[in-house]
Amino acid sequence: MLNPADDAFLAGLARRFPPGTLAQPQPHHLTEPRGRHLGRAGAVALPRTTEEVARLVSACAEARVGIVPIGGGTGLVGGQVMGEGPLPLLVSLERMSRVRGLFPSENVILVEAGAILADVQAAAEAAGRMFPLWLASEGSCRIGGNLACNAGGTAVLRYGNARDLCLGLEAVLPDGSILHGLKRLRKDNTGYDLRNLLIGAEGTLGIITAASLKLVRPPAAEGAALLAVRDPAAALDLLGRAQRRLGPLVTGFELMHRQGLDFLAETMPGLRQPFAEPPVWTVLVDLGLAEGMDPAAELEALFAEGLEAGLVSDGIVAQSLAQRADFWAIRETIPEGNRRIGSIASHDISLPLGEIARFVEEAGAALARIGSLRVNCFGHLGDGNLHYNVFPAPGRRREDYEPLRAEITRCVHDLVHAAGGSISAEHGIGRLKVAELERYGDPARLAAMRAIKAALDPHGIMNPGAVLRAA
Amino acid sequence: MLNPADDAFLAGLARRFPPGTLAQPQPHHLTEPRGRHLGRAGAVALPRTTEEVARLVSACAEARVGIVPIGGGTGLVGGQVMGEGPLPLLVSLERMSRVRGLFPSENVILVEAGAILADVQAAAEAAGRMFPLWLASEGSCRIGGNLACNAGGTAVLRYGNARDLCLGLEAVLPDGSILHGLKRLRKDNTGYDLRNLLIGAEGTLGIITAASLKLVRPPAAEGAALLAVRDPAAALDLLGRAQRRLGPLVTGFELMHRQGLDFLAETMPGLRQPFAEPPVWTVLVDLGLAEGMDPAAELEALFAEGLEAGLVSDGIVAQSLAQRADFWAIRETIPEGNRRIGSIASHDISLPLGEIARFVEEAGAALARIGSLRVNCFGHLGDGNLHYNVFPAPGRRREDYEPLRAEITRCVHDLVHAAGGSISAEHGIGRLKVAELERYGDPARLAAMRAIKAALDPHGIMNPGAVLRAA
Repeated sequence: MLNPADDAFLAGLARRFPPGTLAQPQPHHLTEPRGRHLGRAGAVALPRTTEEVARLVSACAEARVGIVPIGGGTGLVGGQVMGEGPLPLLVSLERMSRVRGLFPSENVILVEAGAILADVQAAAEAAGRMFPLWLASEGSCRIGGNLACNAGGTAVLRYGNARDLCLGLEAVLPDGSILHGLKRLRKDNTGYDLRNLLIGAEGTLGIITAASLKLVRPPAAEGAALLAVRDPAAALDLLGRAQRRLGPLVTGFELMHRQGLDFLAETMPGLRQPFAEPPVWTVLVDLGLAEGMDPAAELEALFAEGLEAGLVSDGIVAQSLAQRADFWAIRETIPEGNRRIGSIASHDISLPLGEIARFVEEAGAALARIGSLRVNCFGHLGDGNLHYNVFPAPGRRREDYEPLRAEITRCVHDLVHAAGGSISAEHGIGRLKVAELERYGDPARLAAMRAIKAALDPHGIMNPGAVLRAA
Repeated sequence: MLNPADDAFLAGLARRFPPGTLAQPQPHHLTEPRGRHLGRAGAVALPRTTEEVARLVSACAEARVGIVPIGGGTGLVGGQVMGEGPLPLLVSLERMSRVRGLFPSENVILVEAGAILADVQAAAEAAGRMFPLWLASEGSCRIGGNLACNAGGTAVLRYGNARDLCLGLEAVLPDGSILHGLKRLRKDNTGYDLRNLLIGAEGTLGIITAASLKLVRPPAAEGAALLAVRDPAAALDLLGRAQRRLGPLVTGFELMHRQGLDFLAETMPGLRQPFAEPPVWTVLVDLGLAEGMDPAAELEALFAEGLEAGLVSDGIVAQSLAQRADFWAIRETIPEGNRRIGSIASHDISLPLGEIARFVEEAGAALARIGSLRVNCFGHLGDGNLHYNVFPAPGRRREDYEPLRAEITRCVHDLVHAAGGSISAEHGIGRLKVAELERYGDPARLAAMRAIKAALDPHGIMNPGAVLRAA
């Protein structure tokens, strides 16, 4: 059982650190973006160095006080806010945001965990490189949190998740020891893969303090098109054709249902929509090409092939980078439209690509049997990752549906699970989905996870109750 | 302490499995490719199903008998042969080699762990896809071993290691439970990354029984060139230029020192060499392009740019796929030339790309101070992975150098470690490099590895003495 971060503990801690290391938690330390979860904490620690993080963790381990690591606080599953149990100490990495090294010829950057994602992107860009992790929250999320949660985003098809962009980690383990793993290596087969174990562990196995990240050279030319497709099956067929033509030069392949465009028209009537009549299904195809290639020509050719094959009925090829940015703005504004309408339930799911079309059909029919609902299904089709969000019928309020929320989520997640999918594609488990993981997770996997947690964090101090139920 | 797989244990085991499940180990079960390590075993078990593997592991766990999992037996660090300690049971996956599913539209194949790598490649090819893990041993290594050891090879620059090609695993954990993780998903953030923990654990945390693997579409056009470069620094400069032009379409970028070509000329005089006078340093550039692109033209342009910049002095662009295959044959025959000459010590190292040139210079000078030696340095330059092998002076025998071997390896590995490199880039730790890992490994990392091993395999039955010293 853990002890609270009470006044006596905090007073003792304060004496051992420079003034200002401990502070009163601010509202942004205790809330999450959807405002659903309110955290509690004895204090927030704001360390300046990895050694300070290590000493903080050691002190908490000794006193059996829980720690909640905080990055930018943008996670959507409550991993950063602890509302129950003995008062924890928050450890925010916000003061550790330096670039420790930049190696353009190696395509590597070394950054501290508190660096804001957009600042990492900017540092790469200043060196003629690109850090290709693109998230809606990039202006406020921090790289340590991106790694702890294995963030995804809109360029995973080409560049992978946060996991795939990380070469090495420095971290403080639950006993206060420092893992020195900031390697700039593409290959290293010397034992167990602790890097990937910490990535995606959501702060429950240690605190990431710095990372060695892969950069890439920006593509020689970029372009995008919006194509109206017959249905999700046609979209997948088109993706295959794009990859046959262009292989890894397809950067993004996003699916949007008309519902999302209608929500934008309703909540942001000033936003210019690309199609006069929104198609039922649209894909946003994004390319990053080699030298000498013409994005518009490649996209026109794909458009023509899609038309010919009966997959595509209409389309717009961006004629400039500005128009490409406009296409992406539409796609990236969809979540804000959703927020303004107010969803009953949101689902961050992934499916085998071949199961997507059937899932969309079956889930739509099953939800219609539950009640009068609207579904906005959009997301990263190339990754099999859909954001499948459920909304009230027009004119009704989300509160009216409160009694149905659990049934809706059960319906969606049961269908996902039956299709071999995942109930958390990119958002993680946090505290919101612990019970879902227990319900759908493989028993041997859960047992191994618990054994690893107990081995590395025997007192259960690291982010108690996230991912795994607190012991 | 473990018990031996003695007659009583084996007789009891035999009664619980179909006839023929247990057999006398054959020579290929007890040796490794360089003939340096001879294994011992009570018997070899040849299970046909995952359930049989699980029952074998359970029986060994109960009796505290060690297990050595065996794939194709091609590993180079002795992970598959146990010469010391209580007699283990070998578990060979050779009878589990089925393709369980093939999903071309998803670019996914599900295979059992005993499938030979070349057979997986062939199954993919028959479906118009490619499984891009290319190894010298692909005709005999098995995919379970490739994954357990996170195999690398010649296309890692583009497609990644075995780790990067795996979407999910089925495995038997040390308590005999079955991990059901054969997901066909590109994204799944539901808890700790056990897949990547098992990959690279070299059979010490469980036995991989099946895998879900990524396929890719073959590039629309492929080509290669051999370019004589000034030195390793010029080679890296050229790699950057190739990637600026072509981004992810650069498939391979291999470095060869003249020593390797000289060894081929000496040991295989019938092999036609591409250059009349072998260059001191040659790179093999391999491209896989998009539709409409011309490999020879792209390679000529790179060649010209390299000449212009003073990086390249000579070159040959393959004019056909047959000539490209000839170039690769040269590269892939170098290890056989090495074997015929007989190395004193071989090193599978990786370095930060920016440290390679200095390392090559310093290591050459340091070895010259030890004795009269020849060095063949070649490998996967794009990955920072060099095979740095040391040979006797002409006319002398490797046996003469036996007293120097430890000093040579210490010299090379100390320089690698000081440069932030790895003493095992792609071959793993096995039993050969356990002491090296203890010497060079980060203490916090080793402690965490031992804690994980103890948590998942409390009796230490899984591949005892590999990666970590047996408790």
